[in-house]
Amino acid sequence: MSTPLASWHLQAAQRLQQFVSAVTDPSHSEYVEPSDRIATFDNDGTLWCEKPLYIQLAFVVERLKALAAEHPQWPHEEPFSAVLSGDLKRLQQLRMPEDVLTLVAATHAGMMQAEFEADVVTFLEHFRHPRWQRPYPALVYQPMVELVQFLQQHQFTVYLCSAGGLDFMRVISAQAYGIAPEQVIGSSIQKVYRPDGTFERTAELVKPMNDQAGKPVLIERHIGKCPIIAGGNSDGDIAMLDYVTQRSGASLALLLHHDDAEREYAYDAGAEAALTLAKERPWQVVSMRSDFLTIFPE
Amino acid sequence: MSTPLASWHLQAAQRLQQFVSAVTDPSHSEYVEPSDRIATFDNDGTLWCEKPLYIQLAFVVERLKALAAEHPQWPHEEPFSAVLSGDLKRLQQLRMPEDVLTLVAATHAGMMQAEFEADVVTFLEHFRHPRWQRPYPALVYQPMVELVQFLQQHQFTVYLCSAGGLDFMRVISAQAYGIAPEQVIGSSIQKVYRPDGTFERTAELVKPMNDQAGKPVLIERHIGKCPIIAGGNSDGDIAMLDYVTQRSGASLALLLHHDDAEREYAYDAGAEAALTLAKERPWQVVSMRSDFLTIFPE
Repeated sequence: MSTPLASWHLQAAQRLQQFVSAVTDPSHSEYVEPSDRIATFDNDGTLWCEKPLYIQLAFVVERLKALAAEHPQWPHEEPFSAVLSGDLKRLQQLRMPEDVLTLVAATHAGMMQAEFEADVVTFLEHFRHPRWQRPYPALVYQPMVELVQFLQQHQFTVYLCSAGGLDFMRVISAQAYGIAPEQVIGSSIQKVYRPDGTFERTAELVKPMNDQAGKPVLIERHIGKCPIIAGGNSDGDIAMLDYVTQRSGASLALLLHHDDAEREYAYDAGAEAALTLAKERPWQVVSMRSDFLTIFPE
Repeated sequence: MSTPLASWHLQAAQRLQQFVSAVTDPSHSEYVEPSDRIATFDNDGTLWCEKPLYIQLAFVVERLKALAAEHPQWPHEEPFSAVLSGDLKRLQQLRMPEDVLTLVAATHAGMMQAEFEADVVTFLEHFRHPRWQRPYPALVYQPMVELVQFLQQHQFTVYLCSAGGLDFMRVISAQAYGIAPEQVIGSSIQKVYRPDGTFERTAELVKPMNDQAGKPVLIERHIGKCPIIAGGNSDGDIAMLDYVTQRSGASLALLLHHDDAEREYAYDAGAEAALTLAKERPWQVVSMRSDFLTIFPE
């Protein structure tokens, strides 16, 4: 058996092991029954790389390009023009949620669920990250994958809790992280059941989106219990981290800090509030530069 | 170890065992991996008694009575007047979904989640079924509880899939059936997360309601896989039973028939279409009179 958490710096690994040891030891005051060992992890930027742009946004760019011939007006119409340009600056200026809704309607709706899943599979197989020229699923963070496995080995049920799309992540979550489809919580769209047993995707969002205060809401809706471990990397994860550390009993909140420009990316943008709050909250900041011995799988 | 399915008539028990034996035998052509062994059961009328009225409707009656002093206009205003009268005929004429929405707003919304759960706990402890003078959780169907356990012992994940309220059922599902909160799928309302880690209940319904075509939709949203076993008892379960039997590979759809006036109730009302369809569909009709040796636990 390989060493658990082998890709973590020793001190960081020991902190994680001590927590898990306490909550899984029936004689310990912080013991937690297996049925309550719930962990929820944000996905983009927490379990895999989110730069230079969210993977699902790269998918949107590809889908729009594929559909552009049927929509000659798009190059003259926002937000389509920004997306088709592929210009990172313009992509970063997309407005939430209105532009996202428009793009979802154009690329994620109107088809059957099985078609959509097939499109995502094809995209993830063929698309290469511009810097490493690897498929995105090869850009999971090896230490985080080890942490997910370590928790599962200790009878934790580990959930993805992503602002990104439920159906997008379900295509890859089992293969990438060993997280089953029923353990994926994400933003999603309404589907319509057809009498032949299939589902049609609509452009109507399921409320709330799974971001910020929506994360605890959808965690509560899906699981009905407060997790004891949560991990995130951005301001969108503040509510989830707070939710977990405010429970009575043991809890562990991890905030990943992207501080390794050499091996990955260094950026605080989008995480300024979380990083500031971390100074006064009982959260553990994980430095990718110091705490991760490796970033990606071999 | 007690005999599994001891409360089923021998022939019915054997049919169930044969199905489970096939899908759990790796050498059988219909073998199903444990991760895909999903079963979904309707609740009211399938796992516990739903007559003379839905248990959650009895809760609504009690809540309205408790709140009536603050609402002097209710005795003159529908649907409150009908509910306060406790008259079964008037209760059966409540309009779906508009009256239900009004009643949910008056009795299930505006409080904190923890308060609501405490109210449900108190109700289920104190309220007695008018015929048997037992608490409702003592009116689960013993053969169905045995079936849930039998499936769990064979590495099935068993879900409640109830048109009734998610939060109402979660209070009792573990104790009544051994079904964990995260395996309850139900109709629910939007909640708002508060920064102190609590949730406020609103009167807005999460779409769709978990009934009819909404059941496959919420099963797909929650689990992301098609069950291989489903059980129901009314027209509201037709879509779920169809969904399951249309999958490729083995499937088992059970339609409970309430045909035992002596030991429980005999009624086809609300199940007419399902019972008619059952003649041409690959569903198994379970006769409570013939297939259940006992109805309720000792």
